[in-house]
Amino acid sequence: MLLVKTLREIEDLDRSAMEMAQRRLDSLIKPPGSLGILEEIAVQLAGITGRPSPEIGEKAVIVMAGDHGVVEEGVSVAPQEVTAQMLPAIITGVAGIGVLARHAGARIVVVDAGVASDVDFPGLLRKKVKAGTGNIARGPAMSREEAIKAIEVGIQVALEEIARGASLLATGDMGIGNTTPSSAILAAIGGYTAEEVAGRGTLVNDQVLEVKVRAIKSALIVNKPDRRDGIDVLAKVGGLEIAGLAGVILGAAARRTPVLIDGFITTAAALAACKIQPKAREYIIASHLSGEQGHRLMLDELNLTPVINLNMRLGEGTGAALTMHIIEAATRIMREMASFDEAGVSDLDEEKILS
Amino acid sequence: MLLVKTLREIEDLDRSAMEMAQRRLDSLIKPPGSLGILEEIAVQLAGITGRPSPEIGEKAVIVMAGDHGVVEEGVSVAPQEVTAQMLPAIITGVAGIGVLARHAGARIVVVDAGVASDVDFPGLLRKKVKAGTGNIARGPAMSREEAIKAIEVGIQVALEEIARGASLLATGDMGIGNTTPSSAILAAIGGYTAEEVAGRGTLVNDQVLEVKVRAIKSALIVNKPDRRDGIDVLAKVGGLEIAGLAGVILGAAARRTPVLIDGFITTAAALAACKIQPKAREYIIASHLSGEQGHRLMLDELNLTPVINLNMRLGEGTGAALTMHIIEAATRIMREMASFDEAGVSDLDEEKILS
Repeated sequence: MLLVKTLREIEDLDRSAMEMAQRRLDSLIKPPGSLGILEEIAVQLAGITGRPSPEIGEKAVIVMAGDHGVVEEGVSVAPQEVTAQMLPAIITGVAGIGVLARHAGARIVVVDAGVASDVDFPGLLRKKVKAGTGNIARGPAMSREEAIKAIEVGIQVALEEIARGASLLATGDMGIGNTTPSSAILAAIGGYTAEEVAGRGTLVNDQVLEVKVRAIKSALIVNKPDRRDGIDVLAKVGGLEIAGLAGVILGAAARRTPVLIDGFITTAAALAACKIQPKAREYIIASHLSGEQGHRLMLDELNLTPVINLNMRLGEGTGAALTMHIIEAATRIMREMASFDEAGVSDLDEEKILS
Repeated sequence: MLLVKTLREIEDLDRSAMEMAQRRLDSLIKPPGSLGILEEIAVQLAGITGRPSPEIGEKAVIVMAGDHGVVEEGVSVAPQEVTAQMLPAIITGVAGIGVLARHAGARIVVVDAGVASDVDFPGLLRKKVKAGTGNIARGPAMSREEAIKAIEVGIQVALEEIARGASLLATGDMGIGNTTPSSAILAAIGGYTAEEVAGRGTLVNDQVLEVKVRAIKSALIVNKPDRRDGIDVLAKVGGLEIAGLAGVILGAAARRTPVLIDGFITTAAALAACKIQPKAREYIIASHLSGEQGHRLMLDELNLTPVINLNMRLGEGTGAALTMHIIEAATRIMREMASFDEAGVSDLDEEKILS
C-alpha cells in the first residue's frame, strides 16, 4: 500500500550534512549567526536533502481542492460553488496564488480531491475521491478508506512533481468552509475547545462565528475522533483536500524534499500528517503566520516557527509561495558567499565576541 | 543648493491614487483585506508614485561606505581595514548583500562616502567627503558643511539611479564601528540614554558593550547635538555613510520613488532624514526588524512597521534586498489578480461579513 510504503521511507534528517552546513556558514564573511533565520533554514535544508549545500531548482505549489458538507450549517460567507469557480481562476493565474506562484517562479498543480460538482478544466488534475465530505456536524466527513485514498492522492502528486524535477514544494488549499474542519482537527489533536479554535475565516460576523463554534462542538461529540490516530481525525472531522495535503507532506518527506505549509488549512493537514508519521515534521517549513485565530496554536503544537508574518489570511498557498524566495535566498547564501579566507577579509577579534 | 532644492521637492503622498488602489484591492477575488500587509504596501506605493497600480521595473541597492574615528575607543570586534576589504567583496557579489541583491534582481551601487584609506576598485563610486569621521567620543564626527556634502552625495546617487531607470531603491551600509554613531543618533533624536540604545552590534561581549556605552555617553556630552536639527545630529555624532544614506532617502522621496531601509544603520539615517524633512517618512518602507537592540526604538520613533523579521543583523542592505520580492509581489497582486466580476466568481454574502 502506497501510504504504508511512504511512511516507512521517511527517515531522520541527516545530522552530518547539517554540521557541515553550519561550519560553512560560520566561515562566511559575516558575523556568526548574523543572517538569523536564513541560516537556520540553510541548515534544515542540508538535513532534509542530505547535502550540505543544496540547490533549489524547480518549485511547485500543489493546490488541493475539496468541498465540505458542513457548509449546510451556514458556517461560510461564500456559497459552495465558489470552490469550483475558483479553480479556473487559479489555473489561469488570476487568483492570488496564481500571481504569487508566478512571482516565485513556481508551477501550480491544481488537484480536485473532492469538489462537490463535476469539474473539468484544462490543467486540472482530476483525482476526486468523493464529491465533497459529509456534514461533520452530523456524521463523519468520509470513511477511513476514503481518507487513505485522499492521502494517497496527495502522496502521488508529490512524488510525481518531485520526479518531474521539483526540489521545493508548497501546499495550498481551496475549499469553501474548510476553516471549520481545520478547526475541528486542531481541537481533536490539540485537545482544545471549539471556542479556542474557531476563528473568523473569511471575516465572518458574530452570528456566523457562533454557528461555527456549534458545528465544531457537534463534530467532536458526534464523531469522537481518536486524537492519537491522524487518519481517524481526517476521516471523521477533516476534508478531502486536507487529507490530500497531508499526503503531499508525507510524500515530500519520503523523498527528502522540503515542503512549505501555508496557513490554517495546510497546517491542519500538517498536524494530521505528523500524527501519522512524526518524522515528517522536520521536512516541513512553516511559511507564514496566518491572521486566522488558531493558526499559532497549530504551529505551537508542531513546534514550528513561521518565517514571515504579513497578516495574510487568504489561503490557496499564497503565504507559502511568497516564502519560496526566502528559502532560495538561504541556499544561495550558502553557495555564493565567500569565506573570510576566500575574500581576503580580516577575521573578527574572537576575544571581543560574545561567547 | 541641491539639498534645499531636494527638500522643497518632497510632497505629500497622492491620496486619490491611494483611494483608487484600495478600491481595486477590494474588488479582487479574495476576502477583503486578506492579503494583509501586501495590500498596505500596494496602497502606499500608489501614494508614493501617484499611480494607482505602479509597476516595479529596475531596482537598485545603494551601499554607502564610511569609517569611524570612534573605533579607536575599542567599540568594534573587527579591525577598521575591514571596511575597505569588504568593498571588492560587495562589488564582485560574494558578500551577503551581493548574493541577496542578485537574488532580488537588483543592481548594487557601492559608494565610498568616507572610507579611511584610499580605495579604488572597478565599479566603486568614489565620492569620499573625508577619510573617516572624527572620534565622536572626543569631538564632532565632521563639520556641518561636510555633513551637507555627504547628504548631497546620497541625493546625487539616488537621483542618478532613478534617472537610469530604478523604480525601487534599497539602502545598505558598510562601516566598521557604525552601530556606535547610529546608537548616538537614536539617543540624540529620541531622547534615550546610552544604555537604552547601545546594542551588541557584531556580537560584542560585555566589556566591549561597556566601552560602547561610555563612548555614546561621551559623544552626547561632548558634542551636544541639537535633536531638532537632523543635520546637526549627523555632523556631531553621525557618520559619512549615514549622512549619505539620509541623502539617498531624501533623493528618493523627491522623485516619488519608494525606498527600503534595512537595519540599525540605515534606520538611523532615516531618523535624521525625517528630522530634516518629515514628509520623507511616507516614502520609506521598513524592510525588516534587525536583531540589533535599539532598532525597534528607531522604528517606533518613525512610526514604521517592518515587513519581515528574520532575526538578521548583518547590515549591508541584506534585509532590504530580501524584502524587494515582497514589495514587487504587492504590485503584481494589484496588476494581475482578477476581480470577482472579471473571473465570474460569486461574491461573498455581505450580510455574514464582519463589518
